[in-house]
Amino acid sequence: MFAEFYTSRLSGTTLEKLEGVLEKKITVLSRSEVESGDVILKAAETGKTGFLVPGDPLISTTHIALRIDAKQRGIETRVVHNTSINSAAPGLSGLFNYKFGASSSIPFPSEGYRPDSFYHVASENKKRGLHTLLFLDIKDRLMTVNEALKILLDIERDKGLNVARNDSIVVGLGCVGSETPVFIAGRINDLISRDFGPVPHVLIMPGELHFMEEEYLKEFGGL
Amino acid sequence: MFAEFYTSRLSGTTLEKLEGVLEKKITVLSRSEVESGDVILKAAETGKTGFLVPGDPLISTTHIALRIDAKQRGIETRVVHNTSINSAAPGLSGLFNYKFGASSSIPFPSEGYRPDSFYHVASENKKRGLHTLLFLDIKDRLMTVNEALKILLDIERDKGLNVARNDSIVVGLGCVGSETPVFIAGRINDLISRDFGPVPHVLIMPGELHFMEEEYLKEFGGL
Repeated sequence: MFAEFYTSRLSGTTLEKLEGVLEKKITVLSRSEVESGDVILKAAETGKTGFLVPGDPLISTTHIALRIDAKQRGIETRVVHNTSINSAAPGLSGLFNYKFGASSSIPFPSEGYRPDSFYHVASENKKRGLHTLLFLDIKDRLMTVNEALKILLDIERDKGLNVARNDSIVVGLGCVGSETPVFIAGRINDLISRDFGPVPHVLIMPGELHFMEEEYLKEFGGL
Repeated sequence: MFAEFYTSRLSGTTLEKLEGVLEKKITVLSRSEVESGDVILKAAETGKTGFLVPGDPLISTTHIALRIDAKQRGIETRVVHNTSINSAAPGLSGLFNYKFGASSSIPFPSEGYRPDSFYHVASENKKRGLHTLLFLDIKDRLMTVNEALKILLDIERDKGLNVARNDSIVVGLGCVGSETPVFIAGRINDLISRDFGPVPHVLIMPGELHFMEEEYLKEFGGL
């Protein structure tokens, strides 16, 4: 039984608890071990092999590539679906699921490299009244909602497409799926200094709000 | 412990199995009982109450309204997330999750009433290269992929936006989340007569395909 936690992190449980429930020893693989696929496929060639990932499997491109590899080597695979941030974030925030446009990721900017495609995705969605789910980067550490908002304001200052102004309403979520998720809705200039609890965090930029969505954000998100 | 199965159907398990796992008797509520909320909220005012729904809770507007009602009556609620077709469909089909635009639903047409907003949602997504997840109507029975494709071709004939031609590639999924899901990719004129197994079904209209998405559709969906 293998697992990887680099495409996301476990929240609300531990490796030990998982081993207890499954009554199996779990070997955690590194990013390169997952990407090469060798360890998992070698095991799967000789016996029944499980590979645990956080969230719904095959949401990450790496897992899609791995399943294709397995098929081409004649290894039969089966997917057991799981709760994913892709449905839990709309669910927890009360924002209507069918009003979410394309999602995107906010990467950590670095010296001379400041990607902004997520900003344009959010802008396109907003033009059509749609919400945007933004995943936050995971490197040696996980990006917080606060950092993500600063990055958005910086890009807004340059591009000026009216996507992320100081008074824009946004929704920050933390530890979704755990017993104590954080759900805060408000203006960017208020949320930028709020505490969203332990990472992982995600950020939602709402489009047009239906009155029931607005009511939900007020009742549960403190808008 | 209550449950409803009118926003979707159970697949891959039975009510009896659920009762066995939970070691509790489950009362299945009708649509009107869920929408009025009375039965559940009355029970919740006097004791710990569970409400089971298929998929991730709060994806359906009815559940959002119910949680707002509970809050306003001073009843504390907690959401336990679950696998949803919203992430399982991208997962199973190998289509990249972040490339899904807004989703929509195909209703059963009736005498003098033939809604087509889902067609325009698919058209808007397609213009941007994005995929569209289409939920199929649930009335006294559940719509099949085959019926959905016929409806789409009918609308295409009228509107002509080049969304659903005979040779357009589509993906049909059946019984997602069960041990024997159906996943077939192909041209509409081929898929319209194929068997997608027991309902529930969903339909995906892909936008531009990345080479890895195409490979996955070929390896697993028989494209």
